[in-house]
Amino acid sequence: MADKRFQSLPGFRDFTPRDCAIRNYLFSVWRNVAHRYGFTEYEAPIVESTELYLKKSGGELTTQLFRFQDQGGRDITLRPELTASLARIVGANQRDFPKPLKWFEIGPCFRYEKPQKGRGREFIQFNADILGESSAAADAELIAMAIDTMLCLGFREGDFVIRASDRASWVNFCAEHDISEPSEFLPIIDRLEKLKPEALKEQLDNFGITREQVDHFISDKENASPAFREIQANLEARGLGKYLELDLTIVRGLAYYTGAVFEIFDTKKSMRAVAGGGRYDGLLSTLSNGAADLPATGFAMGDMVIRNFIEETPNALLEMEAWLARHPACQVYVVIADESNRHSALTVISQLRTAGIATDYVMTQLNVGKQFKKAEQSGARFALVIGEEYPEMQLKILSSRTEATIHPNTDVVTAIQSHLDSPDGPLIA
Amino acid sequence: MADKRFQSLPGFRDFTPRDCAIRNYLFSVWRNVAHRYGFTEYEAPIVESTELYLKKSGGELTTQLFRFQDQGGRDITLRPELTASLARIVGANQRDFPKPLKWFEIGPCFRYEKPQKGRGREFIQFNADILGESSAAADAELIAMAIDTMLCLGFREGDFVIRASDRASWVNFCAEHDISEPSEFLPIIDRLEKLKPEALKEQLDNFGITREQVDHFISDKENASPAFREIQANLEARGLGKYLELDLTIVRGLAYYTGAVFEIFDTKKSMRAVAGGGRYDGLLSTLSNGAADLPATGFAMGDMVIRNFIEETPNALLEMEAWLARHPACQVYVVIADESNRHSALTVISQLRTAGIATDYVMTQLNVGKQFKKAEQSGARFALVIGEEYPEMQLKILSSRTEATIHPNTDVVTAIQSHLDSPDGPLIA
Repeated sequence: MADKRFQSLPGFRDFTPRDCAIRNYLFSVWRNVAHRYGFTEYEAPIVESTELYLKKSGGELTTQLFRFQDQGGRDITLRPELTASLARIVGANQRDFPKPLKWFEIGPCFRYEKPQKGRGREFIQFNADILGESSAAADAELIAMAIDTMLCLGFREGDFVIRASDRASWVNFCAEHDISEPSEFLPIIDRLEKLKPEALKEQLDNFGITREQVDHFISDKENASPAFREIQANLEARGLGKYLELDLTIVRGLAYYTGAVFEIFDTKKSMRAVAGGGRYDGLLSTLSNGAADLPATGFAMGDMVIRNFIEETPNALLEMEAWLARHPACQVYVVIADESNRHSALTVISQLRTAGIATDYVMTQLNVGKQFKKAEQSGARFALVIGEEYPEMQLKILSSRTEATIHPNTDVVTAIQSHLDSPDGPLIA
Repeated sequence: MADKRFQSLPGFRDFTPRDCAIRNYLFSVWRNVAHRYGFTEYEAPIVESTELYLKKSGGELTTQLFRFQDQGGRDITLRPELTASLARIVGANQRDFPKPLKWFEIGPCFRYEKPQKGRGREFIQFNADILGESSAAADAELIAMAIDTMLCLGFREGDFVIRASDRASWVNFCAEHDISEPSEFLPIIDRLEKLKPEALKEQLDNFGITREQVDHFISDKENASPAFREIQANLEARGLGKYLELDLTIVRGLAYYTGAVFEIFDTKKSMRAVAGGGRYDGLLSTLSNGAADLPATGFAMGDMVIRNFIEETPNALLEMEAWLARHPACQVYVVIADESNRHSALTVISQLRTAGIATDYVMTQLNVGKQFKKAEQSGARFALVIGEEYPEMQLKILSSRTEATIHPNTDVVTAIQSHLDSPDGPLIA
């Protein structure tokens, strides 16, 4: 991309074939895990009325909007996230669906921020939400799915950890220390590691709290909330308890979270959070003007940080490469060694494609050597050679150049399908 | 959607679960056909610099842009189509890929026009292009894929037709009738059926041509171009010739087409074109300032007209419903008949999900009758009942209520997988 004339806008990505295949791998794992967990897919428009986002508390987001007027004078915005659309759609349709709703979505979001590693202006998010279930069992179900997403991507114990907490713990802390507005105190905890010591001290002083009191509270596992303990027991029953870690410093920045909150990190903590989520019981009601007053818990994972994490984790990278190898652009390359048989070749190509086999060929006359070169570039395992002895054909394994004859009375589709289904090895005709 | 507060913007759609599943069905068929034909998927950003679209000839499009300034003062636009992005991406990366490129893309596009049946402001397009191959064999390859897309959607002979032509035929006509600027004459042919007789006469008069001369030319199959004949022979070799019809009135509105052009119509012609495409040999060079001077042929199909067409065509509708039935949100619903076994149930649920089986359950205590009701609503074929006799379990077919016992020494995943793989019938434990 050296040539500036052909660059995409800053923070926007071109997905050339390999990047697109990696994106599709993420889509495939996300959909697969969501389906296993009984989640149903929905999609929202990419553009919404701006007022939908202004309603949602959470300050920073509204300064990062791709916001504009359409030709009809409407104030519209490219969606920066999905929850506002979800609330709108559920507000309109909730009577049509039994509760709880387990819904997921995969699609692009847009934020005007400084492009950097793991962060772009257009990124793809996997969103999963459970609406209409207030118990911690729903948080556990969601966190279990988040963990399984990581496992399906090939991550293992030791690669990642879910750090979870419950805002209820800090509400207790506030009650014990006569802090009347926990919503003003929680943002300090959120910025505990970001604030400079003096600034932190000053902010804590305003509430009559010392750093030592905060550290002491965080280090005592007894401060886990009943909901956290329930989530932990639930995950242990699923064999997933080992991925969960109590971390009372996790409160999530946004003001609308009301209960359990969690983030997924790489164990080395060398990058930003891979995913995050939590309970937001009041938000749907606010966003839908009371039409969808449902307790809710949800999480989101973006495509940029997780791709970096995969590429830095050998087992996850292997898993991805194996998937890519199982999804080649071409399975069989037809080499037309005798131009007078081109129409016969088209007939065979049609038969293979109709059987679902990815088949390619050179569209105009070319010498056989060059056709084989293209066959190799295509990534196909097999070349099917159609020459002057047609209807007899030769099938070659491109990696080993071993070959077998397909006799005129053989069904070519069946013959090739059986070879595709077998691992490579000497071909026996 | 009676409540206006929750409506999406005009021309933008919410995809609630059934609509999203139908969208995914289209995606699945489009990807499947493209793969069979050896096409590779790419994706472009949803937002591009506006100048990319202003370069492209084709008047109407630029009045329909969702165009605005971003926070950095850039003049940007939501993509109204993909070809401009394709040219930019290929201009930047073409040296990395052997020619011809066979690339496809599936994603949303945006046009500010009056929302009506089959037309929205956000719609999804399937784009396929062959770049770097100037022969009619490439047009045939592309048209064959368009036909196979229709067949894979369940349409049959008689439901649809590809009406194709070649601008070369009209260039010949112009030469024979001393029309020096075919590019000024062709738009009249494009609007032949839309113009009022007087207006048409007046416009033809300017070129010294009568309606009769035009009709005579159109009705004579001998005016098919050599490229059209080659496409026809090529499709016949594939067994697809019967879907192709010469129609010299097809010239496609946009000025950048240079050769073969085609449109897919329902045979009743009760709706607008389902898909359209053609050869555009000069456009990539114009759009990429000469960096990608590749001959090209491509086509696009939108999701809105094709969905209407499917829903009005019984065989296509059956095909779609069969796919939807094969992709239920839930396969096995676990009924927890004894609350004290909830953690054991979570263990079983985890095992089923890890095996790839879509499994759901009620997250908090509920009486068994209500759990069965939810099992039925879920669309699952099976309920797995975990009661006080656990680890013995009962497996019920929900449609027939026949049941089988899963004995404690049986592997529950294997047992359920074998039932899922068999058609419904009396269960034998």
